[in-house]
Parts: sequence; C-alpha cells; structure tokens
Amino acid sequence: MDLALLYSGGKDSSLAALVLDRFYDVRLVTARFGVTDDHEHAARAADALGFPFATVDLDRSVAETAVETMRADGYPRNGIQHVHEHALEAVAELDVDAVADGTRRDDRVPTVSRAFAQSLEDRHGVDYLSPLSGFGRSAVDRLVAETLDVESGPSEEVPKADYEGELRELLRTEHGGEAVGEVFPAHEQTYVRGTRDSSADAGRSEVDTE
Amino acid sequence: MDLALLYSGGKDSSLAALVLDRFYDVRLVTARFGVTDDHEHAARAADALGFPFATVDLDRSVAETAVETMRADGYPRNGIQHVHEHALEAVAELDVDAVADGTRRDDRVPTVSRAFAQSLEDRHGVDYLSPLSGFGRSAVDRLVAETLDVESGPSEEVPKADYEGELRELLRTEHGGEAVGEVFPAHEQTYVRGTRDSSADAGRSEVDTE
Repeated sequence: MDLALLYSGGKDSSLAALVLDRFYDVRLVTARFGVTDDHEHAARAADALGFPFATVDLDRSVAETAVETMRADGYPRNGIQHVHEHALEAVAELDVDAVADGTRRDDRVPTVSRAFAQSLEDRHGVDYLSPLSGFGRSAVDRLVAETLDVESGPSEEVPKADYEGELRELLRTEHGGEAVGEVFPAHEQTYVRGTRDSSADAGRSEVDTE
Repeated sequence: MDLALLYSGGKDSSLAALVLDRFYDVRLVTARFGVTDDHEHAARAADALGFPFATVDLDRSVAETAVETMRADGYPRNGIQHVHEHALEAVAELDVDAVADGTRRDDRVPTVSRAFAQSLEDRHGVDYLSPLSGFGRSAVDRLVAETLDVESGPSEEVPKADYEGELRELLRTEHGGEAVGEVFPAHEQTYVRGTRDSSADAGRSEVDTE
C-alpha cells in the first residue's frame, strides 16, 4: 500500500517514516510554496534514510494568508495550522492509499482533530495516519536517540524544510526582519542526517524539540 | 528498551505489537482477575506471533467495582474504563522502560486521556505509548487484513482475553445470565491466530471491531 508522509527532514517526521515503513511503501513528501529552496534539505534527509522523496506545490495565497494571520496574532500557531491543513489536503490528492504526518501527542501545533482526520479520509478516499500521536515527547526523544543521527541547534541555523522556513522568509521580505522575531520566538530545531547504523559519527544526538 | 503491552489476543493489541516491535523488546501482558482462564487464549496468540507473554494479577475488588458500575449504568463503558486504567497502573509497575496498549483513534472505550498518560508516566517513570491512537478504524482493518490471520465472530463465541470475558463471568455468577445481556450488547470480536506469513490458511480475514 502506498503512503505519502508530510516530511520536513526533522526528527518527528523521520521517526514517523520508520514506524510506518513496516506496513506501507512510504514516500516522503515536502509541501512548498516556492519561496525558498529549503525542500532540498528534506530531500537530502530522505535520501540518507533511504526513502523516495517528492514535493507538492501549495498555492502561494495559502502562505500569504498564514503570514497575515501570524502578524495579526503575534505568534505562529494559527498560521502554521492553516498551512498544515492545506498541505494534508494536497498530499491526499496524490495517488496513494494513505497519508500521514509526524504530529506527536504533546504537540501544540500543528494538531489534527479527529473530525478533520475523518473528513479528510471521507473526501479523498484515503486513510490518514498520525503514527506518533500516541507517543509523548520523552518516548520520541529516546527513540530518536536510538535510531537517528540528528543535528540540532537554533531554528535559524539548522537546515530544515517545514513550512516555517518559507513563512519566515515571506515575513522578512514583506515586513522586514523585525517582524520575524516578533512572530517566531527562538527555539531548537532538528535536522536528520541518517539512521544510527548508516552514520559514521553517532555522537550528535542531543535533541530538543523539532 | 523493554516494553510491556497490554494484550488481549485481539487484532488491535496484536497490530500494536507489530508497530512497536521495531523499536522495543516487546512483552505481551494480559491483566487478569483469576475469574476465568481466558488468559490462555492470549498466551496462544502471543506464541503464534512470536512474542514473550506474561500475566499480571489485578485486585478482584477492581472487577467487583466495575461490575457494579456496569449494572448501575446498564452499559459497560465506565466499568471497562475503570479496569483499563487499573491494568495500565499494574503493567507500569513492571520493570520496563515503557508500557503500551492497543487503543485506536476511533475507540470509545477504553480511552486514555493525555492527562492520564502524563500522570502515569510521571508517577511510574515509564513512557506510555498508544501506537494505534493515530490510526482510524479503516486503516487498522486494512493493516490487520494484510498482516494477521484473524478469526472473528460474536463476542460470546470467539476466544479472547480482554477484561470483558471475566467481567461477563462475574456478572453471570453474581447476577445471572440476564444481567450479562442487559449490560453487553451483542458485537463482533476478533482473535488472532498468527501472522499472514506463518498461516497456512490466509482466507480468514473478515474482521469487524475488536
């Protein structure tokens, strides 16, 4: 069975891929607006993990709406949620039996309600899976430390391909660098370099949040 | 890492074991009150799947309370929930790094709230995982059909070892057969005979609810 997993190159979506690998032919898919080339980071991480990779294009207007929402709110949550739901709709249009993402039990954003999941499944004729939604943060961190070779650091320095990079860039070009700092507080990001067994250097496992 | 999975011999907890198998040393554990020998069915299913098996004894008073709750309610939900939470507390006392169960996204009972999960983890120093809580019913059914050899039928005829069998028996001995019918509506049960690859007869895959 074919499954498309929304993929950022970070630890959560990478671990989700390993969980689903036993049951599905997993393709890692990064949604993009064409604002940056961040998807190339996700492509490299997917290659390091040994999964096929693809991108889907999201309508630029979705990013514009998200940026305006984040500016008005002063925090990114609702904007990110808006983009995530559009991204799930886009991958559900692919020719697959199932779609998935890396949301965890303790994530505050994005979240996928049971109602949204059911609606997505019914409208697109796919199964929606969030394989980490029954895993808390400490379980995810332990499994990541055991199975993945991860780089982590401040979010502006770690290469990744979640929507955040493109939304930051859009904020910067449209409203200046100060607007980025107002919306996005500094936090840790992770980027996956491969699995433990494929890694020459297994010492880079200090991880925080994705 | 050692993990104890609450196990009934049914399709949900069996699939949960396969999901976790990549990451943990999984032991299947059936909680019992000593009312029936139903745990022997779970032991056989565990053996067919190739996982180690154990039982934990729950205090009979937990079953008595559950039965009285179900009698008063006229339906089993709150009684089953009461027993499930006690069973999770019992497996969390084992010498393991993590505990898990087979609850799905669409289950009405038992459910494990995020607050209960966090409390269980904090009090016992374990991770709690519900690997199927991000899987809807149709995804579970498809994966079960692909990976497990399952027997299904009316709940009174299919051998299994969830709490229901013992609670039914306790209801019967204390309040008569009529009380069982009043509390438990007829529904489909499943019992796992093995994995697809280990099965000589792959035609028995029609499944409904666990």
